[in-house]
Amino acid sequence: MTLKIYADRMSQPSRAVIIFCKVNGIDFEEIRIDLSKRQHLSPEFKDINPMRQVPAIVDGRFKLFESHAILIYLACVFPGVADHWYPTDLFKRAKIQSVLDWHHSNLRRGAATFVVNTALAPALGLQRNPQAAAEAEKHLSSSLSKIESFWLKGSGHFLLGSNQPSIADLSLVCEIMQLEVLDEKDRNRILGPHKKVQQWIESTRNATRPHFDEVHKIVFKVKERLHTSKEKSETESGVKTALNSKM
Amino acid sequence: MTLKIYADRMSQPSRAVIIFCKVNGIDFEEIRIDLSKRQHLSPEFKDINPMRQVPAIVDGRFKLFESHAILIYLACVFPGVADHWYPTDLFKRAKIQSVLDWHHSNLRRGAATFVVNTALAPALGLQRNPQAAAEAEKHLSSSLSKIESFWLKGSGHFLLGSNQPSIADLSLVCEIMQLEVLDEKDRNRILGPHKKVQQWIESTRNATRPHFDEVHKIVFKVKERLHTSKEKSETESGVKTALNSKM
Repeated sequence: MTLKIYADRMSQPSRAVIIFCKVNGIDFEEIRIDLSKRQHLSPEFKDINPMRQVPAIVDGRFKLFESHAILIYLACVFPGVADHWYPTDLFKRAKIQSVLDWHHSNLRRGAATFVVNTALAPALGLQRNPQAAAEAEKHLSSSLSKIESFWLKGSGHFLLGSNQPSIADLSLVCEIMQLEVLDEKDRNRILGPHKKVQQWIESTRNATRPHFDEVHKIVFKVKERLHTSKEKSETESGVKTALNSKM
Repeated sequence: MTLKIYADRMSQPSRAVIIFCKVNGIDFEEIRIDLSKRQHLSPEFKDINPMRQVPAIVDGRFKLFESHAILIYLACVFPGVADHWYPTDLFKRAKIQSVLDWHHSNLRRGAATFVVNTALAPALGLQRNPQAAAEAEKHLSSSLSKIESFWLKGSGHFLLGSNQPSIADLSLVCEIMQLEVLDEKDRNRILGPHKKVQQWIESTRNATRPHFDEVHKIVFKVKERLHTSKEKSETESGVKTALNSKM
């Protein structure tokens, strides 16, 4: 029975799982759970993941959610996954686990909160919360600094000084790729100072091409849509201002 | 060389790691990093964990932080750890990983934020933030409901319907034990409705006695101290009010 992946490619952990499967030749069926249509709240999806979050997988009779758990499971049970993704060496594995755990309360928390409270709020029907965004930016910038100064220490192109990517590289880079939907100004302010992080994103992208680009297409489409609608609303407001000034 | 654990027993993940070692007969040296004295910010500790958080371990030349990563590492490398703590069965292991990942953004986020913004703020030299506490309480109550209705589903006394505890039981129960420092009123309001959670805490405590009680002693001491200082300040303010009313 084919592995089923319930995902929305606008969710960064969904993308990490899909890219992982594609890169490693794991056959799967992708079932889209459209977050903007609130399909994750449907009773059908509750049977798959009672926590109502994507991604989730069904492998035969086995159901699993939480992207890190899914990546570890897939790396362990599917034959042909290269060792560097989740090494059998217990010391290397422990370090990757440490990065993944750190990710939850640091990079993920900062990045997801910032993106939701700036670029994505209107599309999700939410109010922007500038205070939450400001705090999240601090958290995010501090996390990027720590990636740069600590996790990317060493001679390799990947986390933990490695020469090949692990599931942690994929998970964290997909998180940072979410920043693509921001205004260029915001994105440059946040990512600009972190040259090593930018190189590492490029290395991870190169190591997982063409799947990385294909799975991220939607992010760039959403960015374009947000940009166009922002320009439109600015033009309209400009017209209104001009009209008002003439009245 | 003996395993070194850098910990403060007032930190819930520190307690989980210490209890795990004691229960499983893992010999270790406990090095106290007193958070209230800001010892986690010292240059010496930065060499152990550049993220400046407890717990952290040093096992020979190997350094590791993040409590879930530490628990998994210890369960894998130390002989004599019973299989139920972190089963070799990949399906059971994946489910435990899923609970641990879920913990980060749900129970931990709610519980830690609530406790810091209510009972512990003055002791940590912080201002209480009632809005953050209110939001955290919602998050915490929702997490406890999910533990009760989903993670504790099944006939066993432990998470995932198991008959014996795993590292996930220990980690999550130590988190909830932090609620002991709250005012009784707050604690009862939050924990009261969750009878199954209360039974599960008791089961985990029983399965890890006497170490569970010994390692948690400090929490009850801090509770007593906070309670006494609150009573004192209430009496003083009562005296002041009485005096003022006579002036």
